[in-house]
Amino acid sequence: MSNYRLKIQYDGTRYHGWQKQKSGSDTIQGKIEAVLSRLCGQDVEVCGAGRTDAGVHAECQVANFHMEEAWEPAELFRRMNEYLPNDIRIMKVEQAGERFHSRLNATGKVYEYHLLKKDCYDVFARKYSWQMDKSLDISCMRRAADILLGQHDFKGFCTKASKKKSTVRRIDAIEIRETERDIFLRFTGNGFLYNMVRILTGTLVEIGEGVRPVESIQEILDAGDRRLAGETAPAQGLILREVRYD
Amino acid sequence: MSNYRLKIQYDGTRYHGWQKQKSGSDTIQGKIEAVLSRLCGQDVEVCGAGRTDAGVHAECQVANFHMEEAWEPAELFRRMNEYLPNDIRIMKVEQAGERFHSRLNATGKVYEYHLLKKDCYDVFARKYSWQMDKSLDISCMRRAADILLGQHDFKGFCTKASKKKSTVRRIDAIEIRETERDIFLRFTGNGFLYNMVRILTGTLVEIGEGVRPVESIQEILDAGDRRLAGETAPAQGLILREVRYD
Repeated sequence: MSNYRLKIQYDGTRYHGWQKQKSGSDTIQGKIEAVLSRLCGQDVEVCGAGRTDAGVHAECQVANFHMEEAWEPAELFRRMNEYLPNDIRIMKVEQAGERFHSRLNATGKVYEYHLLKKDCYDVFARKYSWQMDKSLDISCMRRAADILLGQHDFKGFCTKASKKKSTVRRIDAIEIRETERDIFLRFTGNGFLYNMVRILTGTLVEIGEGVRPVESIQEILDAGDRRLAGETAPAQGLILREVRYD
Repeated sequence: MSNYRLKIQYDGTRYHGWQKQKSGSDTIQGKIEAVLSRLCGQDVEVCGAGRTDAGVHAECQVANFHMEEAWEPAELFRRMNEYLPNDIRIMKVEQAGERFHSRLNATGKVYEYHLLKKDCYDVFARKYSWQMDKSLDISCMRRAADILLGQHDFKGFCTKASKKKSTVRRIDAIEIRETERDIFLRFTGNGFLYNMVRILTGTLVEIGEGVRPVESIQEILDAGDRRLAGETAPAQGLILREVRYD
């Protein structure tokens, strides 16, 4: 068995997320598995580092899969891109060590959320950003972001928290970068719960709008109650930028 | 009569260009005129500075129109964007001098063509760039671009050149900017003929690929024969960046 490591870029607009679904809806994992199964004539299971939600994009998702036949990575690269739709691109195929697991071995992930400022339209970003209705106070958002740094139980910032699995994660950095038109929120951490980046973004936006105090961050962390946090920001503004390994 | 000046951004993907057509195909001008006519209850004619081809985009098109009723620019801005589809955005509405004409008064235009290098995919640029099959020699392209600078008869770089109208234009700058993934060709001039930027780009790409000598530029200029120039580059890689006025 050979183990292959993929770097994948995709526009999530027309997909029901990364993860294959029973319903047969189009998913990124489903598309890639279908192409690989067609190439090698047997079922192939592709494991992705991050299970991006429906409508979320990836600049660089990492995944791996095992195949009985040994293929040249360059040949796999060429053939996969030949058959994949043009909103999913394999950026790289590499032979990986036998035990490499894209999700379990990942030590960090970087997600970025793109906000378009009030009255700052950008037709080219319309499928990749969230248009603000109000002006945002960036300095408040930065103070709130600082409270989130470090290791915490992020149960309050998660949809459908599992009772069995840990909801403790570590956020290493939240960078808030501003241009004339845009605000980018860049989250770096050891892992993110279901909807976590979108709920963090929705909450920070409410703080920026002034409809929620900076201190509410600590209350949500303490209470672990999803109902205390802000709206889940729309999927289309979110992109998985990077998956890190040691 | 009030004269209004518009700054417009659009994604040209699903339009048959700027200019209204008899066939009733969707065009940018047609969409904007329909919205204005609906707002003020009478026919309005919108004049654009550049008649972008089908599939070409605009970061900042400039247009103007006259209306009998006097509207507040802020009100027009709001109402127009309310009714326009989300791939056409009015960026600014201003009251203009009575004699302002967006096309006749324009003194310069800046178009940019986006090439994606060989093997450098980018799903987010797929509707806004031209994917190269071969590596390009940028230094050859820059030498060829230098020959194009200044005032010339660009008849050889134009589709369906008019016999009556002048095909003399002045190119002030062609900047070729390279990133790891992209090559941007930025053309600044006093005006461009039909398909001119796309034919210039197609010709420069053939020079970059090494299938055409740098010197052929001078031959095309001298002969004024479209058949001597390169392919017309695809519309989707082109964007109107700026229209300049004194």
